[in-house]
Amino acid sequence: MLLLRRCHGLTRCGPLNIQRHQVTPAVASCAVRLLSSREDQRWYQRAHGPSWRHALAGLLAGTGAVLACGLHHHHKAEQADTTRVQAIEKTSSLPIFTQKEVYSHRSLENGVWVTYKGGVYDITEFVSMHPGGDKIMLAAGGPLEPFWALYAVHNSEHVLEMLSEYKVGELSAADVKKQQSVKSSDPYSSDPERHPALRINSLKPFNAEPPSEILSDSYITPSAIFFKRNHLPVPAVDPASYQLRVEGLPGELTLSLEELKTRFPKHTLTATLQCAGNRRSEMNKVKQVKGLNWGIAAISNATWGGARLRDVLLAAGYGPDVARQACHVQFEGLDKDVTGTTYGASIPLNKAVSEEGDVLLAYEMNGEDLPADHGYPVRVVVPGTVGARNVKWLGKIIVSSEESSSHWQQNDYKGFSPGTDWDTVDFKAAPAIQELPIQSAITTPADGAAVDRSAEEVTVKGYAWSGGGREVVRVDVSVDGGKTWQVAQLRSGEKGPEPSPPPGRAWAWKLWEVTAPLPPDAQELEIVCKAVDNSYNMQPDTVPPIWNLRGVLSNAWHRVKVTIREDDSEE
Amino acid sequence: MLLLRRCHGLTRCGPLNIQRHQVTPAVASCAVRLLSSREDQRWYQRAHGPSWRHALAGLLAGTGAVLACGLHHHHKAEQADTTRVQAIEKTSSLPIFTQKEVYSHRSLENGVWVTYKGGVYDITEFVSMHPGGDKIMLAAGGPLEPFWALYAVHNSEHVLEMLSEYKVGELSAADVKKQQSVKSSDPYSSDPERHPALRINSLKPFNAEPPSEILSDSYITPSAIFFKRNHLPVPAVDPASYQLRVEGLPGELTLSLEELKTRFPKHTLTATLQCAGNRRSEMNKVKQVKGLNWGIAAISNATWGGARLRDVLLAAGYGPDVARQACHVQFEGLDKDVTGTTYGASIPLNKAVSEEGDVLLAYEMNGEDLPADHGYPVRVVVPGTVGARNVKWLGKIIVSSEESSSHWQQNDYKGFSPGTDWDTVDFKAAPAIQELPIQSAITTPADGAAVDRSAEEVTVKGYAWSGGGREVVRVDVSVDGGKTWQVAQLRSGEKGPEPSPPPGRAWAWKLWEVTAPLPPDAQELEIVCKAVDNSYNMQPDTVPPIWNLRGVLSNAWHRVKVTIREDDSEE
Repeated sequence: MLLLRRCHGLTRCGPLNIQRHQVTPAVASCAVRLLSSREDQRWYQRAHGPSWRHALAGLLAGTGAVLACGLHHHHKAEQADTTRVQAIEKTSSLPIFTQKEVYSHRSLENGVWVTYKGGVYDITEFVSMHPGGDKIMLAAGGPLEPFWALYAVHNSEHVLEMLSEYKVGELSAADVKKQQSVKSSDPYSSDPERHPALRINSLKPFNAEPPSEILSDSYITPSAIFFKRNHLPVPAVDPASYQLRVEGLPGELTLSLEELKTRFPKHTLTATLQCAGNRRSEMNKVKQVKGLNWGIAAISNATWGGARLRDVLLAAGYGPDVARQACHVQFEGLDKDVTGTTYGASIPLNKAVSEEGDVLLAYEMNGEDLPADHGYPVRVVVPGTVGARNVKWLGKIIVSSEESSSHWQQNDYKGFSPGTDWDTVDFKAAPAIQELPIQSAITTPADGAAVDRSAEEVTVKGYAWSGGGREVVRVDVSVDGGKTWQVAQLRSGEKGPEPSPPPGRAWAWKLWEVTAPLPPDAQELEIVCKAVDNSYNMQPDTVPPIWNLRGVLSNAWHRVKVTIREDDSEE
Repeated sequence: MLLLRRCHGLTRCGPLNIQRHQVTPAVASCAVRLLSSREDQRWYQRAHGPSWRHALAGLLAGTGAVLACGLHHHHKAEQADTTRVQAIEKTSSLPIFTQKEVYSHRSLENGVWVTYKGGVYDITEFVSMHPGGDKIMLAAGGPLEPFWALYAVHNSEHVLEMLSEYKVGELSAADVKKQQSVKSSDPYSSDPERHPALRINSLKPFNAEPPSEILSDSYITPSAIFFKRNHLPVPAVDPASYQLRVEGLPGELTLSLEELKTRFPKHTLTATLQCAGNRRSEMNKVKQVKGLNWGIAAISNATWGGARLRDVLLAAGYGPDVARQACHVQFEGLDKDVTGTTYGASIPLNKAVSEEGDVLLAYEMNGEDLPADHGYPVRVVVPGTVGARNVKWLGKIIVSSEESSSHWQQNDYKGFSPGTDWDTVDFKAAPAIQELPIQSAITTPADGAAVDRSAEEVTVKGYAWSGGGREVVRVDVSVDGGKTWQVAQLRSGEKGPEPSPPPGRAWAWKLWEVTAPLPPDAQELEIVCKAVDNSYNMQPDTVPPIWNLRGVLSNAWHRVKVTIREDDSEE
């Protein structure tokens, strides 16, 4: 019934309006059916003019629906008829542009340029036809690759052909191999290039989060837009001379990168990392706190590959004798401040050595070498534990009876009562944050968005995760500010539902989605989500009672307000 | 300043009023000072008449203060002067009373009788002098022993002497050795006698909780008043013929009680057990749920002794091969319903076999054989896990690829969204409760109590605990309904502060206390508490969003209302 309504809606809107529709699997299925009937195709073509194929294929691309109806052959056969496509088609030698020139084209007025595999594309005309809507503007001035990793359906021959129509030049060779060897007196001179879509909270050190509206579009977050939280400049580490030192055990150990990769079995796991300050901006609305003003996206999910910390500690002589004296494993980064002090943190020894703790010395992220911003060549991945303990650019591991003495372990990343202020705070009184509490947030719709009354329902999406390996078992969603609740559908795994991990080892987030009917007389919706983990921990209802002076651990129910737009044409 | 005020208050109240005062260590210290000066003693005696020593010593007994000022010698020397004491002193043969007769004396009108080590005491006259106030009435008609275990200072020669003055008879020999061998057609005929102070939610099966106002007076809950949650009649188990069967492992194993005690090392640990339905009554106030209407005291703390489940499973051939196939350890009780179906539950295998899981096959509770109500002769203690998995009267252990198929594992003890009702509930959709979420409650003052304006402050006490071995690290208390918060002092351990347990192995609750100034213009206080564990999990603010049809997992902030009584005599 709703499906038919939507199909009906499609027949009456021009291509410029397509992207306004929420593209659900049901709509995609409808679109596939349209394409599989010659009569339907002609009817749709009449409604949408020459660009009908772009609009429809784009609609499919945005959903992940499989294009199984022979579109490609039809497209080839009819290509000659489409004068617009012919006009743009270019195959001969093209001008060379620098990344800077590309970056200057980030608006409909100046043109919207993107790069892809060394090519430069002017997609200005396509922007209004993109079924994902404004999201395409996030790629403006930069590479498409991370977005296409997000929306895997783009990687089809069909979409590549469509893109080729917009090619206007080649990216300079110098920009293709990114210049990471710049030297200067700026301690941040070896920081890498970053993706322009990132929302920057701080440039030096670099701290940025992905746009929240695309965060839950992909189970695995592409590395380029994975949230970045650096405390210090990114160190330039030479992989050939890199050494990892292990101290505090009977047999002290120094490993080259090659030795780390070859002497120990490689393990991979998918784990979500979250900054302790994720959603801090909501605490700032209650009362100003100290810290970066993170939105809801200081959290991302990746697949990590590396040696198990446990195996390395055993190789260095870890045994029961050690456990009787030591309680902590400290990590030192190679990133330094101007005084030479390195970043540092520690985790409990039992997490480090347990077979079920799954702590990695990771040298791969999403199947590739770690990017510079994520700790190249080696970082610690402590699944289930706050980002701050997942030390990047790892230089040293120290097994000790003491926690790390670093500022970030002792005087930061701790939670306090809302009544504690900077005059009364005693950092020794609170434990260092390790496992994080249950968390969830709404990624779609965005706060302040509008939905059409005629849609009759609203689809809400988001993420949910809990620390300590506790699996998210339920997400409740309300569209009336928390009075009544619906249970969302959970999605785990990159390629569809996966079985539950063993108890206590659920390291990755779950994405969720629910479609709720619009309350008949509401003019505004307050959409709320709250998650539950398998220890039945719940999120607190409101922010003020969990407010704390550092603005960490912000995990109250997430709320967005949405207006309902009366659709006059339907009345 | 406040101490002086209170001492001053004491000089003006007669003995009948002493028990109205909150007895804090400060007051006790003041009382000790009174006793240590001859002049002060005379002054106090003038104010209180012949019973001054009872009143003062009682005041001390209620606080745990050490009586270190030679009171006993003075008492002996002056005893001859106290005519009232002489009149009651009885040493010759006394009448014999049955428990039933004792039980009929539970009011000031009919007399208040108690038993202690086979003696019967009429303490009617002492009730008004008891510094612990009305709490003494909880012992009326029953044994004193569990209360004296709560307030260890009673076990002094001085207090015993005082008690001896009230002796009126001896308990019949038949009642002294409790009659547990009664046979009848009632399946509950072998249920044991219970302490009359318990607040009964259900008689058959027996379900009862201790009075909440005394729950946090003792770090270890005496077994007699430990909350009792039976699903079926208590089975009469003969320890001589008792057998524990272990199945599902390469070497199946049957152990006698003696073998369990002698073949495996004995471990002891202190662990809090909590019923999934604790605080259900607060959910019932939102909307009726199914289940026993527990208050805040379906939670207690005891020291358990027994063999480690891990050791028994290893003896039966548990090894890595088993772990590849099995995921659960099922427990079967010897308690049966009329069809012969036994109580059953299961826990994840990794909890059962982990050295850090600390699961016990317990045969001792608080240093004695398990009481009948708590699973004599053997129960499972699964620390950090909901009470329902701590199977009592353990008959069988089964290592399996499946969870227990029992009703209590499959169709009960699960959490659901507030929007789920009995028409829509799908018990398969939720995981069986294992670890419980963060919990806390206020035990003092009681809801509806009054505090005097002249006291200027209110002392709030309670308990806090979290499942999964997560340590409680902070309790916030508000006296203005949650607008502002103070941090409470935490107490762990029976005999003063103890060091933090290893991470993930904090099995016992913390008791807490805070003294807050009375807001100058308030006429009523809404006192609220909320706890935080070391994964920084917080309690949800309100009950309705966590309401669920079975009324389990009720862990919203606990709230009590207290009125402020204007003290005219001070004005």
